[in-house]
Amino acid sequence: MKIITISREVGSGGRELGKRLADALNFDYYDREIIEEIAKNKGLDENYVASELENNDWQHAPLHFRCSFLGVSSLASAHVDLLLEQRKVIEAIAERGRDFVIVGRNSDIILKKYGSLNIFVCATMESKIKRCMARAREDEKLTEKQAERQIKSIDKNRALTHEIVAEGGWGNRTSYHLTINTSDREIKEIVPSVAAFASEWFNHAK
Amino acid sequence: MKIITISREVGSGGRELGKRLADALNFDYYDREIIEEIAKNKGLDENYVASELENNDWQHAPLHFRCSFLGVSSLASAHVDLLLEQRKVIEAIAERGRDFVIVGRNSDIILKKYGSLNIFVCATMESKIKRCMARAREDEKLTEKQAERQIKSIDKNRALTHEIVAEGGWGNRTSYHLTINTSDREIKEIVPSVAAFASEWFNHAK
Repeated sequence: MKIITISREVGSGGRELGKRLADALNFDYYDREIIEEIAKNKGLDENYVASELENNDWQHAPLHFRCSFLGVSSLASAHVDLLLEQRKVIEAIAERGRDFVIVGRNSDIILKKYGSLNIFVCATMESKIKRCMARAREDEKLTEKQAERQIKSIDKNRALTHEIVAEGGWGNRTSYHLTINTSDREIKEIVPSVAAFASEWFNHAK
Repeated sequence: MKIITISREVGSGGRELGKRLADALNFDYYDREIIEEIAKNKGLDENYVASELENNDWQHAPLHFRCSFLGVSSLASAHVDLLLEQRKVIEAIAERGRDFVIVGRNSDIILKKYGSLNIFVCATMESKIKRCMARAREDEKLTEKQAERQIKSIDKNRALTHEIVAEGGWGNRTSYHLTINTSDREIKEIVPSVAAFASEWFNHAK
């Protein structure tokens, strides 16, 4: 079984890269399905689960709260519960034994034991802002400053969540096998390179 | 013309990766030849040039010296002179128009205008120490502590030199197209993946 995990910065095009990579390699692709599964298992609303796992606002909590959170305080146990359920759902996917690409959700940590190829996708702030602005709907009237704030805020969350399930290291170059910089590139131009890398990687895996 | 630059941490196996990559792709390979060329052009001893460009001890200089150095103080003008000659030699190689791989020497900055594929090679400290110890001669009796000190010291130099020729960014994920983590891997296992990535990269380059 071949597994590729994609961790990424907001605006780096990592999700598009993951989807296109799955297509190019003929792998299954997981992203939103995981939220649906967690919601079903827990009897919770899908949008609630998504917002808890994807958009929670820990960075606005005072530092002492965050510290106690890392020690799993009671206040945050609902979060931790969802994170544990997420881990179970992801492990169940792996147990199916089919090749797949998965985006986000700390899957790099969870799937390491299955010999996953872990990729981090990044870009310069300038390039990420450009991508986010292009993606925003006309009526959103997102300014560059707002886009930058959003990018920083969501990425800070991702780093924090990563710290809960592992020992930090989100975005650190030694936390992944490969880090790809998508600045000034179209994702579809990069995909054949990453697909070729991955194919050879699994051919030469121990 | 296809150019691949390899920047790397000490002990990451970046030089070996560069050599093997050149072999795999049938590209020319440059490393030590550049020192020979600089020495010849400047009428200087090769070992002197090598030690100035590779092993100089800026990190032991007090901070104010380093600051003035960034503004090219007279004390350090010999260094800068060698760096400028190095740039000329590297640009002359590019002007030959042949495909090549080059390791280190801030070639990522110098060769950007030729559309180089810039790769950074890294590894965890544990893995780098292991590699350095394996490479050290028996009679060196290198301890792990000494290896770690050497690694940190040389890499600090590399970051400083990079700051002189560019605006910092040594080892930063957005300073390169690709960052490869060689921890727990043999270089020869990784080379086919990187070679496949590079081939596709140049096929899809703008």
